[in-house]
Amino acid sequence: MRAVDIIMKKRDGAELSREEISFLIGGFVAGDIPDYQVSAWAMAVFFKGMTAAETAVLTEIMLKSGKTIDLSGISGPFVDKHSTGGVGDKTSLILAPLVAAMGIKDPMMSGRALGHTGGTLDKLESIPGYRTSLSVEEFRQIISRDGFAMTGQTKEIVPADRLLYALRDVTGTVESIPLITASILSKKAAEGTQGLVLDVKYGSGAFMKEESRGEELARSLVNTGSELGMKVSALLTDMNEPLGNKVGNFLEVEESLDCLEGKGPEDLMEVTLELAARMAVLGGKAANPAEGRKLCEEVLKSGRPRELFLQNVKSQGGDPEKLLEMRGKYRSPFVAEIHAGADSYISKIDAWKIGHASVELGVGRNRTEDPVCPTAGIEFHRKRGSQVKRGDRIMTVWSKDQAGLDNTLFALALAVEYSAAPPPPRKLVLKEIS
Amino acid sequence: MRAVDIIMKKRDGAELSREEISFLIGGFVAGDIPDYQVSAWAMAVFFKGMTAAETAVLTEIMLKSGKTIDLSGISGPFVDKHSTGGVGDKTSLILAPLVAAMGIKDPMMSGRALGHTGGTLDKLESIPGYRTSLSVEEFRQIISRDGFAMTGQTKEIVPADRLLYALRDVTGTVESIPLITASILSKKAAEGTQGLVLDVKYGSGAFMKEESRGEELARSLVNTGSELGMKVSALLTDMNEPLGNKVGNFLEVEESLDCLEGKGPEDLMEVTLELAARMAVLGGKAANPAEGRKLCEEVLKSGRPRELFLQNVKSQGGDPEKLLEMRGKYRSPFVAEIHAGADSYISKIDAWKIGHASVELGVGRNRTEDPVCPTAGIEFHRKRGSQVKRGDRIMTVWSKDQAGLDNTLFALALAVEYSAAPPPPRKLVLKEIS
Repeated sequence: MRAVDIIMKKRDGAELSREEISFLIGGFVAGDIPDYQVSAWAMAVFFKGMTAAETAVLTEIMLKSGKTIDLSGISGPFVDKHSTGGVGDKTSLILAPLVAAMGIKDPMMSGRALGHTGGTLDKLESIPGYRTSLSVEEFRQIISRDGFAMTGQTKEIVPADRLLYALRDVTGTVESIPLITASILSKKAAEGTQGLVLDVKYGSGAFMKEESRGEELARSLVNTGSELGMKVSALLTDMNEPLGNKVGNFLEVEESLDCLEGKGPEDLMEVTLELAARMAVLGGKAANPAEGRKLCEEVLKSGRPRELFLQNVKSQGGDPEKLLEMRGKYRSPFVAEIHAGADSYISKIDAWKIGHASVELGVGRNRTEDPVCPTAGIEFHRKRGSQVKRGDRIMTVWSKDQAGLDNTLFALALAVEYSAAPPPPRKLVLKEIS
Repeated sequence: MRAVDIIMKKRDGAELSREEISFLIGGFVAGDIPDYQVSAWAMAVFFKGMTAAETAVLTEIMLKSGKTIDLSGISGPFVDKHSTGGVGDKTSLILAPLVAAMGIKDPMMSGRALGHTGGTLDKLESIPGYRTSLSVEEFRQIISRDGFAMTGQTKEIVPADRLLYALRDVTGTVESIPLITASILSKKAAEGTQGLVLDVKYGSGAFMKEESRGEELARSLVNTGSELGMKVSALLTDMNEPLGNKVGNFLEVEESLDCLEGKGPEDLMEVTLELAARMAVLGGKAANPAEGRKLCEEVLKSGRPRELFLQNVKSQGGDPEKLLEMRGKYRSPFVAEIHAGADSYISKIDAWKIGHASVELGVGRNRTEDPVCPTAGIEFHRKRGSQVKRGDRIMTVWSKDQAGLDNTLFALALAVEYSAAPPPPRKLVLKEIS
């Protein structure tokens, strides 16, 4: 078998066999197949795609490149959620304790902020003391006791994904749906989950700008997951505007607590409850999403999810009492406000512009090795559809330093669009793919 | 400027600027841009193509990566021919002395046999003593005196092409028309020619199997050559069957001499004269191809091209007297014949099958470092359209060793197809693109 023949076969649009994918990707991970052949293959995949069967094989080969989390001995069901990334998207922090409160275990392995999208690990680490590098044994123990744990991926988990992603990142092959699919599913399969609810976002603040591309990715994830024997359900959700009223690391922890206390903003609660409803179904706690949603709303009212969240903070090294005391106060001193320029309606707050500005503020990072600032971020006092008067406060902005404010305030002001009439309503959860 | 942005721009179908192509390919040659980015870019070019302007820029950048031959001080015009490669294609050996006899200088830099296609240098080296590694000064002197010289490319000529070709060869990106175009034209521009006649072959024994792809390559070569200010003319010729009656190294030298003596086979003379006619036009010796062809036929009859060929053999280290003595005798002792199985007509002799078998016989090579055998090859006693009787001799086959005969005789017999009625006539020169 020769790598060049495999590249040409894909280039000419044919389906690769298990042996061929294994030869190429297994060989790449082992150091036998050079990166210049894999990058040419990845570009051919970008143009010619992969079938669900091929993508499933690639996912399996990537999964088997490293260790997997052994959850045996812990009673299930295990259901996790994965989001393709957005701005202000803190649903993971709410969902894990919510489903844990109904008896579903969530073995959550998350990522960090990169580019304009936030990262669950960075948000959690804004809680002083909170540790996101759990050992496998700690991860197992905390899931077993609290119903969920939230950690980062260790180097032993799917090393093929790290190698392949690093190559894709510099060769223009990140935006390939089958390669994204294998990357997501291999990591989720490695953490030991049985059911997976996917929040596939589209819009300016999402990885997929167009709804049709988001739907294509959702279908690829569901079809490939099904080939792998996983229970997968996907929601296609709107990420043209930031989710919730807060964007930032500690700011988003706060807003998650608000949600767990029944005081969350409407858009964030809508997406969270729709995702939670599907997790309830996959975990066997509800017969259909409508029942699932009803159950989730009841469980939330019980206060148990909030208790479990605070318990998890303690389990992972934080101080719940101190966290509650810090609410509303833990802010960077570099602060500014943005006000409405005229009597009007807010017709749009662009998620992409907000996300990019928030990197400058210190919420996110452009390079994986850069630090983030826990106390930076944006609070929206008004959002899309609000009627405003000239001078009304639209946002409060906290930055890691003065330069961050200087560099972003103009761009942040431009991220808000105004209109004379109220904008049409926005559908947040567009459709379910399963 | 970042290489990944250039890759993505090409991937998304946009035209690259001179600065971008220079950054990527210039950087690759300088060792600053890694091969894995260039291979991904090459695959994007395979799918998205390049405009004539982009291809011209790439050609120039490749040309400038090395030295060029300085022909100043030698009176022109300089006109060369390039063939995309075939089986039994020895037109270069006839064309160079033919056009030299009419006052056109041909600075010919040729290649070696690879895969099923033959190589001019290997054919010339079958003449004992003939040297194909001329120094630049020798090259200039011999062109100046004999009107042409035939040499291999030195390492200083277009190093970018060697680097890029080696990468394309292992990444499934050889078959990209703009990349082939830049490879051919950069080498031809480096040898100092002003006019270039291209023999773009299509069919089983050619690089381009389909006529439409051959035509696409011919158009790309002509358009890009024109962007570069070269005078370029291309003929699209049929390479479904071997050209002439002899395939081999010394065998093809012999057949070239036959042509120079007016005894060449009809198909070979047809292609040679049509190419020569265009060289005469580009060299300013004829107003149009019809006049050019008439002139070439007259010049050939004068015997001067034969004299010049023998003079060149002497100039490049061979012994013309000895060469003439060796004609018809310099053969490998491992010989066999193939006979017709039934009374019929020969309807086809497949060039691809003949070419591949000839590699096994020792005529060609699969790896650039393999040696070739000067005395191996095939002589066709009958060709397409011949009426044959059972037992008639179709081919004589000479191999470098017994294994070569054992491994190829069956395949060679299968390369010949028979029919009850004569096959329709074949058009050798399909069209001119200029």
